[in-house]
Amino acid sequence: MIIDIHGHYTTAPKALEAWRNRQVAAFGDGTAMPRASELRIGDDELRESIESNQLRLMRERGLDLTIFSPRASFMAHHIGDFAVSSTWAAICNELCFRVSRLFPDHFIPAAMLPQSPGVDPATCIPELVRCVEEYGNVAINLNPDPSGGHWTSPPLSDRHWYPIYEKMVEYDIPAMIHVSTSCNACFHTTGAHYLNADTTAFMQCLTSDLFKDFPALRFVIPHGGGAVPYHWGRFRGLAQEMKKPLLEEHLLRNVFFDTCVYHQPGIDLLTRVIPVDNILFASEMIGAVRGIDPQTGHHFDDTKRYIEAAHVDPAQRRKIYEDNARRVYPRLDAALKGKGR
Amino acid sequence: MIIDIHGHYTTAPKALEAWRNRQVAAFGDGTAMPRASELRIGDDELRESIESNQLRLMRERGLDLTIFSPRASFMAHHIGDFAVSSTWAAICNELCFRVSRLFPDHFIPAAMLPQSPGVDPATCIPELVRCVEEYGNVAINLNPDPSGGHWTSPPLSDRHWYPIYEKMVEYDIPAMIHVSTSCNACFHTTGAHYLNADTTAFMQCLTSDLFKDFPALRFVIPHGGGAVPYHWGRFRGLAQEMKKPLLEEHLLRNVFFDTCVYHQPGIDLLTRVIPVDNILFASEMIGAVRGIDPQTGHHFDDTKRYIEAAHVDPAQRRKIYEDNARRVYPRLDAALKGKGR
Repeated sequence: MIIDIHGHYTTAPKALEAWRNRQVAAFGDGTAMPRASELRIGDDELRESIESNQLRLMRERGLDLTIFSPRASFMAHHIGDFAVSSTWAAICNELCFRVSRLFPDHFIPAAMLPQSPGVDPATCIPELVRCVEEYGNVAINLNPDPSGGHWTSPPLSDRHWYPIYEKMVEYDIPAMIHVSTSCNACFHTTGAHYLNADTTAFMQCLTSDLFKDFPALRFVIPHGGGAVPYHWGRFRGLAQEMKKPLLEEHLLRNVFFDTCVYHQPGIDLLTRVIPVDNILFASEMIGAVRGIDPQTGHHFDDTKRYIEAAHVDPAQRRKIYEDNARRVYPRLDAALKGKGR
Repeated sequence: MIIDIHGHYTTAPKALEAWRNRQVAAFGDGTAMPRASELRIGDDELRESIESNQLRLMRERGLDLTIFSPRASFMAHHIGDFAVSSTWAAICNELCFRVSRLFPDHFIPAAMLPQSPGVDPATCIPELVRCVEEYGNVAINLNPDPSGGHWTSPPLSDRHWYPIYEKMVEYDIPAMIHVSTSCNACFHTTGAHYLNADTTAFMQCLTSDLFKDFPALRFVIPHGGGAVPYHWGRFRGLAQEMKKPLLEEHLLRNVFFDTCVYHQPGIDLLTRVIPVDNILFASEMIGAVRGIDPQTGHHFDDTKRYIEAAHVDPAQRRKIYEDNARRVYPRLDAALKGKGR
């Protein structure tokens, strides 16, 4: 089985964006917010948005199952306040849940959180609980910078974030560390902010002893770990100067990388440098890079092709495609086993 | 000849740091600043600080010449105001100039600028002129984020920066795009902020048409280009979606990468992905990562070993070691030719 651990609902019906625009405008004006119940999207619309997009490409590429979360760039936690984020997260998470019900063999949900800059992350717990207990979510996306490129929250190693971690450990779910849209003109969202956040999050883990406090906590760093595998020697050297244990021991029981790296040399580096047990298959399709690579004639984000061509043996490839995902996302494994898969 | 285009004076005599501490304290207190003339460092001290450190390692590793600039993390443009930065930059640049006079065969200077957050970069021109005309500097270090991790300046493509670019083009000097210490707790200076800035700067160039306005402008992105070569497919794909020309045409006449990547797989990726004409040898020795890699028994920052082992032919290696540096830094080439080198 091939599990794509990193898919977002980037193709939701336009009514979703229209509702969000009304919400944002109302917050700006101080006028009455639209109610969640005013957003009506039928099952047929949901089906169509998936069948003609993600599911079509999954079938073409031979991917079986996607861990599916709300569109990352639309989380936009910097907009509004906690109430705005809370309503918005509930709507987006419900849509992903509905997709997972419509296509139970192909999608399983992961939750966005109703984060808001300067607001205690503990406020996210009720939505997290609902998503796990009622919607069967197997993971969360945690935004280390709800300010959208101003980086005003404490590092992930700070106790600020511990309420989330405690709940994650209780539920045995991992977090993908994923920022949203940048509202800082310096940072292009998908070309700079995303990759910077990946590198930043890894380094926040490296300099701290977070995983001593939470030995069972698991983070997935998306986009192939940002700059980390390319600079693995730098990170090993920095850890050594800080008298930290070897990275394998210090971080790699808790930190995992996805394969959203959109060319063969990048995937070759990833699989050469990072232990295979820490690499999880993903494409973030349909996402930031949708075109066809003129050098290959295939989609940039068809990452399965790169994994097929990488120098890993069949047992290692199976870990990347399936076994690691089952281990890092135990609720995914349980859900699959519950269906005899 | 092997030219290291990225060295900082990280080993300056302690008196420099003591003077700086007095300056910073005085600014904080509102008391009288120390005068530049109160800092006295003799030639013997300078000689000793270089001979026992950078020059010793250059000889051990077989490096001939280093482009030498003030310590990047000490620039700390976020501290104080323009007057503070101005005095500090003048002192640091003078020291690098003196090192270049004491060891004219081994060091040639590059300048830091007296940047200050919110201050017009045009204010940096007098120091830039002095460093080029009086001190023989062959390049500048340009900090895209003088706020130290808060990213409050406009992107490098903004006209805000044009006065610097006009002077660079007039003098035919490149800029290394190099941030300084992070004062944002989210970003570890050398493990996150440096790499993020490299990626960010590249993306600012990619999304803009800066090099249409300045066809002769040249940027060197340090630390192997941050995350860029590892994600080269992503950047090619993003450029394609933005209807930009191929990156070779859009950016690679103006943007160059150094080899400060501290393990073999990273250098192998760099030389596989980036055209050899855009790769310049560098080590940033003695810098962020000073230890010995237990996997190799050699210093992490002994980047020459990785270039020696990379899959490039002798003519390509010569470009990386020397020819590209002479082309990207014409004043370096002229200075060498003036000595028959």
